[in-house]
Amino acid sequence: MAKDLTKREDNYSQWYNDLVIKADLAENSAVRGCMVIKPYGYAIWEKIQATLDKMFKDTGHSNAYFPLFIPKSFFSKEASHVDGFAKECAVVTHYRLKNDPITNKIIVDPDAKLEEELIVRPTSETIIWSTYKNWIQSYRDLPILINQWANVVRWEMRTRLFLRTAEFLWQEGHTAHATRQEAIEETEQMINIYADFAENWLAIPVIKGVKSENERFAGALETYAIEALMQDGKALQAGTSHFLGQNFAKAFDVKFTDKEGKLDYVWATSWGVSTRLMGALVMAHSDDNGLVLPPKLAPIQVVIVPIYKSNDQLDLIAEKANHVKKQLEQKGITVKFDDRDTHKPGWKFAEYELKGVPVRIAIGPRDIENNTVEVSRRDTLQKETHSLDNIEDYIEKLLAEIQSNIYQKAFDFRKENTFKVETYEEFKQVLDSKGGFIEAHWDGTVETELKIKEETKATIRCIPLNNPQEEGKCMVTGKPSKQRVIFARAY
Amino acid sequence: MAKDLTKREDNYSQWYNDLVIKADLAENSAVRGCMVIKPYGYAIWEKIQATLDKMFKDTGHSNAYFPLFIPKSFFSKEASHVDGFAKECAVVTHYRLKNDPITNKIIVDPDAKLEEELIVRPTSETIIWSTYKNWIQSYRDLPILINQWANVVRWEMRTRLFLRTAEFLWQEGHTAHATRQEAIEETEQMINIYADFAENWLAIPVIKGVKSENERFAGALETYAIEALMQDGKALQAGTSHFLGQNFAKAFDVKFTDKEGKLDYVWATSWGVSTRLMGALVMAHSDDNGLVLPPKLAPIQVVIVPIYKSNDQLDLIAEKANHVKKQLEQKGITVKFDDRDTHKPGWKFAEYELKGVPVRIAIGPRDIENNTVEVSRRDTLQKETHSLDNIEDYIEKLLAEIQSNIYQKAFDFRKENTFKVETYEEFKQVLDSKGGFIEAHWDGTVETELKIKEETKATIRCIPLNNPQEEGKCMVTGKPSKQRVIFARAY
Repeated sequence: MAKDLTKREDNYSQWYNDLVIKADLAENSAVRGCMVIKPYGYAIWEKIQATLDKMFKDTGHSNAYFPLFIPKSFFSKEASHVDGFAKECAVVTHYRLKNDPITNKIIVDPDAKLEEELIVRPTSETIIWSTYKNWIQSYRDLPILINQWANVVRWEMRTRLFLRTAEFLWQEGHTAHATRQEAIEETEQMINIYADFAENWLAIPVIKGVKSENERFAGALETYAIEALMQDGKALQAGTSHFLGQNFAKAFDVKFTDKEGKLDYVWATSWGVSTRLMGALVMAHSDDNGLVLPPKLAPIQVVIVPIYKSNDQLDLIAEKANHVKKQLEQKGITVKFDDRDTHKPGWKFAEYELKGVPVRIAIGPRDIENNTVEVSRRDTLQKETHSLDNIEDYIEKLLAEIQSNIYQKAFDFRKENTFKVETYEEFKQVLDSKGGFIEAHWDGTVETELKIKEETKATIRCIPLNNPQEEGKCMVTGKPSKQRVIFARAY
Repeated sequence: MAKDLTKREDNYSQWYNDLVIKADLAENSAVRGCMVIKPYGYAIWEKIQATLDKMFKDTGHSNAYFPLFIPKSFFSKEASHVDGFAKECAVVTHYRLKNDPITNKIIVDPDAKLEEELIVRPTSETIIWSTYKNWIQSYRDLPILINQWANVVRWEMRTRLFLRTAEFLWQEGHTAHATRQEAIEETEQMINIYADFAENWLAIPVIKGVKSENERFAGALETYAIEALMQDGKALQAGTSHFLGQNFAKAFDVKFTDKEGKLDYVWATSWGVSTRLMGALVMAHSDDNGLVLPPKLAPIQVVIVPIYKSNDQLDLIAEKANHVKKQLEQKGITVKFDDRDTHKPGWKFAEYELKGVPVRIAIGPRDIENNTVEVSRRDTLQKETHSLDNIEDYIEKLLAEIQSNIYQKAFDFRKENTFKVETYEEFKQVLDSKGGFIEAHWDGTVETELKIKEETKATIRCIPLNNPQEEGKCMVTGKPSKQRVIFARAY
């Protein structure tokens, strides 16, 4: 199967698309820009959801659900929000279909026009803050720490599976606080949670930083982001956490009485990650043979493939295999024993390589004689023969090692592909020849940033947190700069 | 707080609405017919989801995700489906907003009109079967056993929180099979799972049956349903499972090659339950003091309230309370210790009664002296003093007893409110005086069913599975009938 996969060096973008489809993660649907997430892909998303959901709940957040539709007028209430956001979106104008009496075809009933159009949520700040207005009177009602798992729609013109789709799945946290300081702490807490998740579950090293003014979320005072580097040298923003100040509270008139009886606007944050993480996961680790999944998020962690000629052999092997399966399952490891007689072992090997199953165990007749199994790890493609004694401890350690090896590999890749440049010429040269993260001095103005973007398609990915301060000159204008920022071309 | 709750006998419908809002389950949103599910309500829904999800997976199903939008033309492909369904729905006609250059207000961009309108899914058979067409070639590709957790929209004119909302959350299973028999078995398996969940988790007794032709799902050959009885004597359909025959396969041209190499259309089922179950849960068990939640689905199973005058007393009580909390948590019981000093014990008692917390433990200074606690159960409102020794075993048993008592109470209520009638006069009299489930003979025709519905607003809820066969005469037409069917007015 892997033979049909485009090689990364031939066409990275085609490789990605092939892989997402061939590994049964997702496919394009009959509706432009909307994807179907297939069971294998959705199983990874469920693991992502379950892990993050626990992290959110452990930090005091609860889930809730707000409407899919937002009245059009709500978008006008926060001025910068509408400019940055609400333009490309799905608009509901009618609420009924009918049979055309002449053609007998189904048509939109012109009599069922909505008085005010409804927008399918591209993000929910407006509808949520219009709701919070009724929930908040006093400091005793604060903080509100709510998260929502939902679908959202942004009418993207160029779509790519997981990375940019018209409809996508995500979580959006929306919190309300009595003080500026508390809201900032929440914003930072959440970007830290995202970074923890990215590094320890997705096995993707990320840089935590704040966005430049130009790249900030529409309506935010500060946008924190985690930025990851893909194998083609392009950056991918993997999660954002926004300090919204009092902007949405002012837009929806949400005030509270503080302990001293003084009336003030409420402070807000919002933060989210989406099915885009699935794209990051694929692009960060996978290879020309298929997916490479970190064990912690793999739907199947270990597959056992029997190698046999006769049914008698299969019976013996199955007995061993089921025993191993049970031992591994007792350790909380997810195991599949693939004893289908419709496919040969070689076909199965390629299939599970394509699907990124971290560990494959093959058992043949000689293994039965020798009390051994053949263990292959997906990340390095190395095989070795191992005794069946204490196999469960060995596999458990191996899975942990694979998890950390995948991370280390991505970390080393990023290190090798992070460059310091001093001049704009050098910048453009590195960008075109190698890509990667480029650390450069910038004068801090939107004009310079836009000029760079227009001329090179590179953007400021972030200004890292705890960024070392150093004297320098903007690579474009030569004006003074106190720190380097990270540029890259990005997804 | 409970004082503000309308009494059931004064106005059942108002009581329901009051309770849903005051117990923080849900509220109406700024968008007509769409609700906000609040954290406490959503926590119950999450338990419903988790339980059902496990039951689905244990029977071999996987989750996936299909698009929110469905091209309008898809609805025309299955003739009876469009007649029964697609009329009242949200229609997306445009994909962009813009600033009106004259008024500077936000308007829908007339240049961004979709070539074909998109319908926000009211149910997903059409989009899913258009996808399955690409997944199925041979019997080896079958069965497909997929479930989706999603939001759907039906433009209901009269809405009620949870029971009937324009947008609601649900799961929809969509399976594909090689044989008619296998599809029927799947349909029956799923209605059995729903009944199991209703009785053993929701604590609501249900009647399993099939719908009359007139009440069948649009496009189904047979609709199985579970029917529950609410405290006001009205029925509520709590889940449905449809045998779709080959209708959707024919509409979307989904054929497969069977083992003999013969080409045939694929057999289908679909099945779903929704946030409507939240309405059933409230209406089946709750009382004039507030919610009564079955322990298995209660977000908080035990609340501990300290009763104290001084901080010294609170310290002593807190020590005990935290010890009890830990012991209970080790048994997997969810416990809240409410030591807020902003509210008095009496206020807290009323609050947790309103919210249906199954068990309340109060600890006061005398309890510390006597090594006791006061235990109150929400279902019967009974209190008793209990020694702290082995309190965790006692509470564990008590929770199980409450779960079964709530079920038994609902079961007895249904028994008392199920009536056999012989004549149409008697039927109308029972319906108006008592409501409930009415078992009556019916001639099996749509005409008679519609006449009864028009004259009395009662419908055939179901023809029970394994229904006793007996000779009789239709209560309306006097024509011969082989069995009684169940009538009721319904939500």
